[in-house]
Amino acid sequence: MALDNLIDGRVIANQIHEETQRRVIALKDQCGPPGLVFVRVGEDSASRVYVGMKEKACERLGIQSQIQVLPEETTEKELLGLIGELNIDPAIHGILIQAPLPKHISEATIFSAVSPNKDVDGFHPLNVGKLLLGDTDGFIPCTPAGVHELLIHSRTPIDGTDVVILGRGNIVGKPMAAILCQKSEYANATVSLCHSRTENIDEHCQRADILIAAIGVPQFVKEDMVKPGAVVIDVGVNRIPDSTAKNGSQLVGDVDFDAVQKKAGLITPNPGGVGPMTIAMLLRNTTQACAKANGLKPDIFNT
Amino acid sequence: MALDNLIDGRVIANQIHEETQRRVIALKDQCGPPGLVFVRVGEDSASRVYVGMKEKACERLGIQSQIQVLPEETTEKELLGLIGELNIDPAIHGILIQAPLPKHISEATIFSAVSPNKDVDGFHPLNVGKLLLGDTDGFIPCTPAGVHELLIHSRTPIDGTDVVILGRGNIVGKPMAAILCQKSEYANATVSLCHSRTENIDEHCQRADILIAAIGVPQFVKEDMVKPGAVVIDVGVNRIPDSTAKNGSQLVGDVDFDAVQKKAGLITPNPGGVGPMTIAMLLRNTTQACAKANGLKPDIFNT
Repeated sequence: MALDNLIDGRVIANQIHEETQRRVIALKDQCGPPGLVFVRVGEDSASRVYVGMKEKACERLGIQSQIQVLPEETTEKELLGLIGELNIDPAIHGILIQAPLPKHISEATIFSAVSPNKDVDGFHPLNVGKLLLGDTDGFIPCTPAGVHELLIHSRTPIDGTDVVILGRGNIVGKPMAAILCQKSEYANATVSLCHSRTENIDEHCQRADILIAAIGVPQFVKEDMVKPGAVVIDVGVNRIPDSTAKNGSQLVGDVDFDAVQKKAGLITPNPGGVGPMTIAMLLRNTTQACAKANGLKPDIFNT
Repeated sequence: MALDNLIDGRVIANQIHEETQRRVIALKDQCGPPGLVFVRVGEDSASRVYVGMKEKACERLGIQSQIQVLPEETTEKELLGLIGELNIDPAIHGILIQAPLPKHISEATIFSAVSPNKDVDGFHPLNVGKLLLGDTDGFIPCTPAGVHELLIHSRTPIDGTDVVILGRGNIVGKPMAAILCQKSEYANATVSLCHSRTENIDEHCQRADILIAAIGVPQFVKEDMVKPGAVVIDVGVNRIPDSTAKNGSQLVGDVDFDAVQKKAGLITPNPGGVGPMTIAMLLRNTTQACAKANGLKPDIFNT
């Protein structure tokens, strides 16, 4: 029998898309449509799929998007040149540089070169700093922002809870900790950031009211690591061998879903949990960037 | 009998001052002395004392310092104007705006207006973001940087330990967490950030290998909250009534020192622990700012 404790990321993402669509209509009325550019370097197959999905979502919501595809051998300098042009293009409000970039290009350098005002991915250090400082004026990275919305929409209590985050990456773990530790509504959690060097990681997990797995290890979180009734969010996307699958592999998360679901109060499926939220937050960030670029106050979206 | 488990902040700060003095000599030789300006608004008595101490330390090490004192009724706009001038003054490498500012001035606005390259306090969101992202190119806030040096100089193991930080302020708690969670030498800790909304804060403290108190509550950390052998760092500065004292009050930290000392492996006295380190890190940051402004690589200090 199916358990009724799923946090359905597709449903929540669609609610956010509907709100974003209303924002796009308001923006078109006030200043023209938001514009988002995707920059992809090389032909990484996962990147092609991700950019394609994001582009389709833009089209559905009325956001004007374009893709710039550069060859694998593009130099860092060439990429910086393109970003410089995009930074001053008034029709473009958001710039997304699809990671991973080829190894000869520094992601930190590239992410820092995107104008903070067009940094809809929230990776620029200025936006990261604002996030940690509790300044709500910046952009928040899409995946942790999406996890936060999953918690809010599923009415998970956050204030005063013990949150354990597995993984201290710059894309998920660290900004996730920054979001949930703030002295503000839907935050105020006691956050512990665990990682590959953590001792007794099981014990940390066992005391978590909310356990967020972004550690990049297939099915790392086992049933005995989860407190009964805990809310479990699985951010992981790992490809493991599967001889029964057509392409010889399958995607699994960081959580041993079938076993953990029985113990968790709420749990995200994977796929269908965090993934759809990342795109939803990206498009919402793009409407925010467009409003800001046109000197519109965020309250134009409050209707 | 006096216990021999003190981390002497004065001794360690003096070691850092000696290194800074060597840096100042190298800078004078290469490009002229580092210049630091203190901006104080109003006549807060603690601020007068702090700025005076910092100025004396500058003098001792050969850093050229100046104080700009503005009246309490200075407007935010006037202060921003002064910061704008200091930002482009080539003789000034570091700008310190002494907090607290009068209530009609936004500290966040003012700290963001200081050039990130002269932000020797490490409060600018760009520097905060770099810190969280693990980019070592920025300035680190002086108090948590000083605590970090206390741990390193006292040979406290950090890698893989459980660190519990009490207090999530922007000046200490949050940047402290950012420093210790990094995937790098003298870091790699599992960090939990506790605060006023934390449930069972005693239990969190009891599992800490390193307990850092920056919660602003006099003698908050009691003996029964400390694991035997833990390293306890007291960042607190609280004034409490004391009828036996001349001015009717005394300064105490966030740790109930006499009782906790018996249980701790190592502990900072207060005063004489973290306080001297804050100044030491400020002056070191100023030499870094001066070197950067003159296009000198940090390795000129490695001699």
